[in-house]
Amino acid sequence: MAVATRAHLAESTPAQVREVIRSGAWQGTTTGVAMGYVQANLAIVPHSQAFDFLLFCQRNPRPCPVLDVTEPGSPVPRLMAPGADLRTDLPRYRVYRHGELVDAPTDICDYWREDLVGFLLGCSLSFEAALLKAGVPLRHHEDGQRVPVYTTNIECRPAGIFEGPMVVSMRPIPAAQVARAVQVTTRFTATHGAPIHVGNPAEIGVDLERTEFGSEPVRFRPGDVPVFWACGITPQAVAMRVKPELMITHYPEHMFVTDLRDEEIATL
Amino acid sequence: MAVATRAHLAESTPAQVREVIRSGAWQGTTTGVAMGYVQANLAIVPHSQAFDFLLFCQRNPRPCPVLDVTEPGSPVPRLMAPGADLRTDLPRYRVYRHGELVDAPTDICDYWREDLVGFLLGCSLSFEAALLKAGVPLRHHEDGQRVPVYTTNIECRPAGIFEGPMVVSMRPIPAAQVARAVQVTTRFTATHGAPIHVGNPAEIGVDLERTEFGSEPVRFRPGDVPVFWACGITPQAVAMRVKPELMITHYPEHMFVTDLRDEEIATL
Repeated sequence: MAVATRAHLAESTPAQVREVIRSGAWQGTTTGVAMGYVQANLAIVPHSQAFDFLLFCQRNPRPCPVLDVTEPGSPVPRLMAPGADLRTDLPRYRVYRHGELVDAPTDICDYWREDLVGFLLGCSLSFEAALLKAGVPLRHHEDGQRVPVYTTNIECRPAGIFEGPMVVSMRPIPAAQVARAVQVTTRFTATHGAPIHVGNPAEIGVDLERTEFGSEPVRFRPGDVPVFWACGITPQAVAMRVKPELMITHYPEHMFVTDLRDEEIATL
Repeated sequence: MAVATRAHLAESTPAQVREVIRSGAWQGTTTGVAMGYVQANLAIVPHSQAFDFLLFCQRNPRPCPVLDVTEPGSPVPRLMAPGADLRTDLPRYRVYRHGELVDAPTDICDYWREDLVGFLLGCSLSFEAALLKAGVPLRHHEDGQRVPVYTTNIECRPAGIFEGPMVVSMRPIPAAQVARAVQVTTRFTATHGAPIHVGNPAEIGVDLERTEFGSEPVRFRPGDVPVFWACGITPQAVAMRVKPELMITHYPEHMFVTDLRDEEIATL
């Protein structure tokens, strides 16, 4: 099979993108694919921990906004993409055992079990499109980079066995457009919503030069203010803290593409 | 102890109201008490069904917006009222066994078990205050009645063992103010949010004269349109359908009073 191109995938439907990924013809990031459709973070845990994890998400909706939860043992996200398979339809995964990253496979068929429950959590790609439409510049886009990501000193609200620090993404925003950026992202409560912090990185334990999870610092333009949004990588920080027997997540930037359009999950 | 008066309770803090209720000095409805504070619907299920129920709420956020979930065995809603006790702090409860309403006690100490999990769900009192502030009249208030409640033909999204019809409340709204009523309640996603239906009761299986759950029809003024909001009584309709071993709920209009102000749970 021919290798797909990002330009082709940008104009494809979510079902087409997932089929290309499932076939192995695309193992890159999902940035810019199926433009206008909601992409999601993935976290998979055993059923015995599913209540605790769902409660963790419910108590921490900014980093972990729940879009869909599969039936135990089913890899099908019925609400977000009834024709999809969470075992094969992401380009790459991360497998954590007892808090250690042990594998980064392109499918998880070998890891799948009848007691696993999949959680799809909103991701920031949806609100980034809205920010661009509103005329708010995204510096990491301009420089062709991934969004920088940091672990903060903000503790999530614990639930059962799950606890850990909140992970955030940071975007430099021109001071005159910070308010607009808050307004635009507020509509996207299902994909992290409004910023959790504006300015003053040190207060949340962030050194802007010390990016994490494979991201790199982004260049500020004069007058830019650092604006922080909760990030769907938070469950991975939780896994590293709590060291559950098994947690499987998406690989950063290698997301699940749902059948919903961005505007369908916006409020107001 | 002297019996409390509603006028006194209206000006009391949530903690004071809960203490009066706990002491047995108030067994009436919570309408108008601790004005400006969020009140909540209650549903209690065994831990073995808690994941299914939380997932049911997550999939049906309009009727079942989750405000707080207790740790298994703990009657303390730590997020909404850390000093409260769900066993004693509501004026009256309903106990369902295998789908049958078997008791309506004023406390549930005798029913409490170490495996029970309490769910607090948003209720419409918060957005009613906002409607009144916005100049939208509430006919059932004008006539000194409870809000009329109906079981619809709309099926909730099932989750695990839980399934059932959506229950709605109905308010006649002047046609010129329907749009404003939608706007105002949209801000209150944590307390049912925007209407689920405007006009045409028959389409959702509702005969306005056939009210349920102890409510009565309310009188329309000329030009009023029936507007329907999802209702927190929905879990009781689910209990009647699914017949779980045990579900304990609040008694209609006898709610849990939280420490949060209405505006704290509003969006935008």
